[in-house]
Amino acid sequence: MDNLGEVLRYLRESDGFISGDRISGRLGVSRTAVWKYMNQLERYGYNIEKSKGKGYHLAGTPDRLYGWEIDRYRKTDVIGRRIIHRDKIDSTNSLAFKQALAGEPEGTCVVAESQEKGKGRLGRKWSSPAGKNIYFSVILRPAIHPSTVYPITFLSSLAVSDTIGELTGLEASLKWPNDVLLHDRKISGTLLELSTEADMVRFVIIGIGLNVNLEPKDMDQEIKARATSLSMATKKTFERPRVCGILMSNLERYYNLFREDGEMAICDIWEEKARIRGKRLEINQMGESYKGIARGIDRDGAILLDIDGKIKKIIAGDVNF
Amino acid sequence: MDNLGEVLRYLRESDGFISGDRISGRLGVSRTAVWKYMNQLERYGYNIEKSKGKGYHLAGTPDRLYGWEIDRYRKTDVIGRRIIHRDKIDSTNSLAFKQALAGEPEGTCVVAESQEKGKGRLGRKWSSPAGKNIYFSVILRPAIHPSTVYPITFLSSLAVSDTIGELTGLEASLKWPNDVLLHDRKISGTLLELSTEADMVRFVIIGIGLNVNLEPKDMDQEIKARATSLSMATKKTFERPRVCGILMSNLERYYNLFREDGEMAICDIWEEKARIRGKRLEINQMGESYKGIARGIDRDGAILLDIDGKIKKIIAGDVNF
Repeated sequence: MDNLGEVLRYLRESDGFISGDRISGRLGVSRTAVWKYMNQLERYGYNIEKSKGKGYHLAGTPDRLYGWEIDRYRKTDVIGRRIIHRDKIDSTNSLAFKQALAGEPEGTCVVAESQEKGKGRLGRKWSSPAGKNIYFSVILRPAIHPSTVYPITFLSSLAVSDTIGELTGLEASLKWPNDVLLHDRKISGTLLELSTEADMVRFVIIGIGLNVNLEPKDMDQEIKARATSLSMATKKTFERPRVCGILMSNLERYYNLFREDGEMAICDIWEEKARIRGKRLEINQMGESYKGIARGIDRDGAILLDIDGKIKKIIAGDVNF
Repeated sequence: MDNLGEVLRYLRESDGFISGDRISGRLGVSRTAVWKYMNQLERYGYNIEKSKGKGYHLAGTPDRLYGWEIDRYRKTDVIGRRIIHRDKIDSTNSLAFKQALAGEPEGTCVVAESQEKGKGRLGRKWSSPAGKNIYFSVILRPAIHPSTVYPITFLSSLAVSDTIGELTGLEASLKWPNDVLLHDRKISGTLLELSTEADMVRFVIIGIGLNVNLEPKDMDQEIKARATSLSMATKKTFERPRVCGILMSNLERYYNLFREDGEMAICDIWEEKARIRGKRLEINQMGESYKGIARGIDRDGAILLDIDGKIKKIIAGDVNF
């Protein structure tokens, strides 16, 4: 994709038309090759105006999460250095997991326009209509013990929340364990999947679903009342590759913090932003309901719930405010 | 393999020869089919004497870990209900992991005569010559939180230790985190590999290597001084399918205990049998060495080391006594 990315860049840099000669000179390829790249771009959905005398002009960019489009907005060294794009996929996490098992290095991302089996936490479904949102997974290989993995969920939520802030100026809120809300509606979720030994993590897949240009008409009835998107919250449309590039950049920033300062640094920031201390919560954990006052987050990601003066550690569950 | 297993059983039950007619009658198949089964058994390495007048006689059983051979000694409902056997394999854990990803149910085991890439803990090699030992992996799907997985390593060591006791009358010793020793030499190790979400285990692979009929001449130079086998410790040879069947039975017993009484029950038994409390230990953890007195095992499998009155929790490392 390198030459193709270059051709796109020349097209974008030229105000009007750019001649085939000019491109072939800069790339060091034949004019026939340039012509082929133009056809390839058209197949990818780019609108290329062609003029016998003037050359080529980029008249339209498709709304697609191609790696070279994300690269324009991505400020990272590791996350996204390789991007695998799919129109349709069972789930981005599943492909990323398989790639990681086969030895794919840290940082590789899988992005998709739609998921046929989008996955949420605990085997739940994640609604994944085409071309509206971001479904993306990244392979990480931190040298850590499995018991300190959980805060990577928080790291992901923090990156999403910062991305929303940058794009909309709105403050998202964080809901334990893995949700990001906007105006009290779910806008994003993280699904962590791991392959580990008993005392060493092999790899972690962070899967993020973020509703971008989703409209109420795209939503399943069951989630309509509880979900939102960047677009619904702002009445604007967002360039998804830009959203994705900014998200990757924020992810890498928090991931570096996680590796340098440890999992508690992440837990502390999450706890602070989630304003969870002192909050009265009801948590359902495997069919049982616990009511109490949150006293904080443990290093394994558990919530510490004060139930009539006794601290109960909740390691998995769903929170009701 | 059902009919083949039945044919084998008839051959074993008859003192001398058993006629083809008799077998075909009991199985409800043709005499040609019986003849084909005999050929098949021969291909598997069984020694079948054939007599025109008297029929068939089982004159020899190969030293192989076939599922139907293990089944003769296995007293389990779940572990080993399906057994996948390979002559050669990269590693039993790797195949079990792939099978589990593809949806293979709990209890399925992978056993192999030899491993080309036998794996130990932390990416180490596990010496795996052919036909001498047991290399086996089982898929488990406990509904637990990842933080309580670690004691499954202990459960495995306990099952191995009991199996050694049953077979030899000798008492094996347990070394944190995952080794079983006999006469202070390593005889078995467990490698746990997991696929999990942040708060839910998808599956666990227990991989066990147990040295059975290994002799010093089969050993790599580097492990010769530190390793032993059932055979070296007793000067006897062991039927490997029997060893494997007994091991599966012990595994299932401890796994049931784990599920019914929880991970602390397993930690307590392990701690007791390992006689670790009060022991002076030196532990290397990621390049750093800690000396102290062991105060016990935590629910996440960590060792609690008393270093001059301060308790340090060691989550991964290697112990020197």
